[in-house]
Amino acid sequence: MKTDVQIAQEANMKPIKAIASIVDIPEDALELYGNYKAKVNVDAIEKLSEKPDGKLVLVTAINPTAAGEGKTTVNVGLSMGLNKIGKKTFTALREPSLGPCFGVKGGAAGGGYAQVLPMEDINLHFTGDIHAVTTANNLLAAMIDNHLHQGNALNIDPKQITWRRCLDINDRALRNTAIGLGAKSDGVTREDGFDISVASEIMAILCLANDLKDLKVRLAKMIVGYTYDKKPVYASQLEAVGALALLLKDAIKPNLVQTIENTPAFIHGGPFANIAHGCNSVIATKTALKLADYVVTEAGFGADLGAEKFFNIKCRAADLKPDAVVVVGTVKALKKHGGVAKDALTQEDLKALEDGFGNLQRHVENVRKFGVPVVVAINEFPTDTPAEVSLLTSLCEKIDVPVILTQVWAKGGEGAIALANKVVELAESGTADFKPLYPLDLPIKAKIETIAKEIYRADGVEFSSKALKNIQKFEADGLGALPICMAKTQYSFSDDQKLLGAPTGFKITIKDVKISAGAGFIIPLAGDIMRMPGLPKVPAANRIDILEDGEIVGLF
Amino acid sequence: MKTDVQIAQEANMKPIKAIASIVDIPEDALELYGNYKAKVNVDAIEKLSEKPDGKLVLVTAINPTAAGEGKTTVNVGLSMGLNKIGKKTFTALREPSLGPCFGVKGGAAGGGYAQVLPMEDINLHFTGDIHAVTTANNLLAAMIDNHLHQGNALNIDPKQITWRRCLDINDRALRNTAIGLGAKSDGVTREDGFDISVASEIMAILCLANDLKDLKVRLAKMIVGYTYDKKPVYASQLEAVGALALLLKDAIKPNLVQTIENTPAFIHGGPFANIAHGCNSVIATKTALKLADYVVTEAGFGADLGAEKFFNIKCRAADLKPDAVVVVGTVKALKKHGGVAKDALTQEDLKALEDGFGNLQRHVENVRKFGVPVVVAINEFPTDTPAEVSLLTSLCEKIDVPVILTQVWAKGGEGAIALANKVVELAESGTADFKPLYPLDLPIKAKIETIAKEIYRADGVEFSSKALKNIQKFEADGLGALPICMAKTQYSFSDDQKLLGAPTGFKITIKDVKISAGAGFIIPLAGDIMRMPGLPKVPAANRIDILEDGEIVGLF
Repeated sequence: MKTDVQIAQEANMKPIKAIASIVDIPEDALELYGNYKAKVNVDAIEKLSEKPDGKLVLVTAINPTAAGEGKTTVNVGLSMGLNKIGKKTFTALREPSLGPCFGVKGGAAGGGYAQVLPMEDINLHFTGDIHAVTTANNLLAAMIDNHLHQGNALNIDPKQITWRRCLDINDRALRNTAIGLGAKSDGVTREDGFDISVASEIMAILCLANDLKDLKVRLAKMIVGYTYDKKPVYASQLEAVGALALLLKDAIKPNLVQTIENTPAFIHGGPFANIAHGCNSVIATKTALKLADYVVTEAGFGADLGAEKFFNIKCRAADLKPDAVVVVGTVKALKKHGGVAKDALTQEDLKALEDGFGNLQRHVENVRKFGVPVVVAINEFPTDTPAEVSLLTSLCEKIDVPVILTQVWAKGGEGAIALANKVVELAESGTADFKPLYPLDLPIKAKIETIAKEIYRADGVEFSSKALKNIQKFEADGLGALPICMAKTQYSFSDDQKLLGAPTGFKITIKDVKISAGAGFIIPLAGDIMRMPGLPKVPAANRIDILEDGEIVGLF
Repeated sequence: MKTDVQIAQEANMKPIKAIASIVDIPEDALELYGNYKAKVNVDAIEKLSEKPDGKLVLVTAINPTAAGEGKTTVNVGLSMGLNKIGKKTFTALREPSLGPCFGVKGGAAGGGYAQVLPMEDINLHFTGDIHAVTTANNLLAAMIDNHLHQGNALNIDPKQITWRRCLDINDRALRNTAIGLGAKSDGVTREDGFDISVASEIMAILCLANDLKDLKVRLAKMIVGYTYDKKPVYASQLEAVGALALLLKDAIKPNLVQTIENTPAFIHGGPFANIAHGCNSVIATKTALKLADYVVTEAGFGADLGAEKFFNIKCRAADLKPDAVVVVGTVKALKKHGGVAKDALTQEDLKALEDGFGNLQRHVENVRKFGVPVVVAINEFPTDTPAEVSLLTSLCEKIDVPVILTQVWAKGGEGAIALANKVVELAESGTADFKPLYPLDLPIKAKIETIAKEIYRADGVEFSSKALKNIQKFEADGLGALPICMAKTQYSFSDDQKLLGAPTGFKITIKDVKISAGAGFIIPLAGDIMRMPGLPKVPAANRIDILEDGEIVGLF
């Protein structure tokens, strides 16, 4: 079997100008990064705002398992399948972080014959967006510490600084640091820490901003800490907004690349899916909608986190109306949800499949609560048995959800034609009537409880006293009317990552509540959320190499 | 008077493909970054190694003062002047760090009618080279701390780790840090610190490597620390080399831009000029030499640091033979060296000019010790009086060095035609006979003493016991035969930044000696060298902005 990188190298990429012309992006709106990548200057596309929107399709999934679901692969495959049946389609995806690339093996640009290209570049520095976020994040941090050092006119309490530094590296030793050690001239001593760059609020803002103006408004609203008398300190008070916006002037422009079948793809922005909302940029999605009949996009993790945030945060903020949702599952992953051990997943097990189906069923029910029609895509593996596939199909039929088999890894767009036809049928049926799950003017606690009960099916929510105190503070500061961005394990509907399937009889415990006032959401922490990964015992970096002839080894 | 940014905006830039064609770089060797920047794939230029080399001209200067000398401006102006007199010329410069950009006002791409364009891009993220260095530097750091955390098979002493992290930000609070605080799962607790990225050894390596192969050889030789039994630990032992090289795969390619008069310019690499060698990349310089009749390049700080390191480190490592040297001075800066206060520099003062001339004279004498013919360029200011200019000219004539007036800020290449003619005369005279100042096989102490006596004119060198211990260790480890990279104040020939002019009767004190075994030099520290700048009371970042129409404010 060929590897992803071998398949990628045999692909017939078209010059990015040719890809742009498919969707009528004029050449003077392109800023080329080599022959196969370009930033798109959205303002240079004439009459864009006058064009009607295409159909918006979200690809989401069951709760992820070690078995893998192939959500990105199905996303890419579906976009190519739609093209094959005559719909001009754009795909919009997140850009991957460098950190995990050198940590555990594997890039993040789809796989097999459903990849986005050029995969090496996308997985390395790409067009520098994440580096720009890192720089902006850390310039703000330097300005905060410089403010303390130069007299602290704003009366910032060093013990209440919430802004952390960041790097796009998996580096556990930076999670908790002390800074400003040394001489008096070396700054004010305090505790600090680094997150991975994609966890920076600036990444979330980049992905939610409608344009440069909105970006600046959001940057200004970022809270960096509190004064000794507990008043929030905003980035605007540090006079940092212009400099941060300038650092992001290119990062805000969507990156145009292509799928292995030359479907246009925006890969732009990549916020964490736990402490942030896990979707590619609003600018990419909205621009793509103006340029294509169909836009296929995805959201991080399973539908309980990804789709919920896509709907309640991104669609609400950007006034997007999704037309159809694809929930991806696999026989293997559902068997895992049904209790099968990882090394037994390739053996037929109908009982486990039926037990695990509850996970898929609950996600389907949840998506329907947002008023959007849904189809299940079963991403087929060679080890799936006919009996398993047949059972899964009939289980879906029982809950009245259309189910389609896909073979996108092996066949590309061809393997998603049936799915594409079903998606078109749903999207053009006129049945979509999108609405968020909760109104913004509910109290923060009630919004959290709504998600916990309606989506997770928890019996209730328990709040720590710290969480309650912060909720009270945010509401007192006039920041209560923001949507919720839940930080919870992606592996379970509950806050216990070991509770697979469709658990019931549990409560969600909110240990703490944070705020990203610039991004515009409140972040309840249901458990300890890792914001800076570590490297494994043998990092992928040990195997990665570039040979003298330029061949890249070990990256995928 | 127009500002630099106004002049830049009125400039008539040519598409970078047109610039490339001037020097016969084929289109398929270009990787475009927009219309006006490109990375050059050197391996794609056919028969490059068979071409003869053009002439190499170094632009250096007197010791810098607050008055400013305009070394980069003269460099850019001279390259344009050479073009005007019919010599196909390339200029090769360093790329600027983001840190100072947001600290004190001012970019680093020349000025007035002697600029390199597009200046905003060059001064912001440019093509991402420095971000690649930051990432590689910090991935190695993460791999070191991960190694400690995962059992420390190499027996590394956490107290003897010499590898530091870096950021391309002015951030004093990161100079001295403690990392690995928190739980056992959060890594090993130890002291650490951050340098600005351009101070990373990886930046120096990028600039000294001849090609990808040499880059990997040098990366492998980097010392990251010592074992408990005091043996050096190399980056190769952490199996990090392939991953670091992959992160640098694009950064190693020279960046092609243009001057305001469309002269081809490589802006590539920018190592510190104190703890590193302060020159643009060897690859850029050598490639430019194959493509043009003349290559004009510069080295950081005054000639005592910049030219000395250019000759003894860069030229020796890359087998370059410079043909002529321009030493830049100004009437104002020489009056400063003669003892005039900064606010009185615009008043005529012949006595001070004559007193300060000793600084210029010593640099001229020093350059001649390397066997290369020299010309003095007086970068004229409107406040220079005819009597001052006349005196300075006659002082130069007395020491038998040609002296030429230039007006490059106001007139561009036209203001450097006389200088260009003189440079051609010297370069084509056949008098250049370059030789380094000292052989590599001298003991480390003797090499340091040679530089101190021959270049600085010190009476001798005093070594701290720490310095002596390290010298002994490096020689015992078989690393003694490397050139010296002196870290000393740039403001004086001595190690006391207040001793201007041509001081005598002083000794140099070496407090410590470091090594960059991958870059390939030994770094004696003559004083406290700042490797991480801080932000001033009112950082430039406070004034910098990007308006809604894209106009950039406050950057220059």
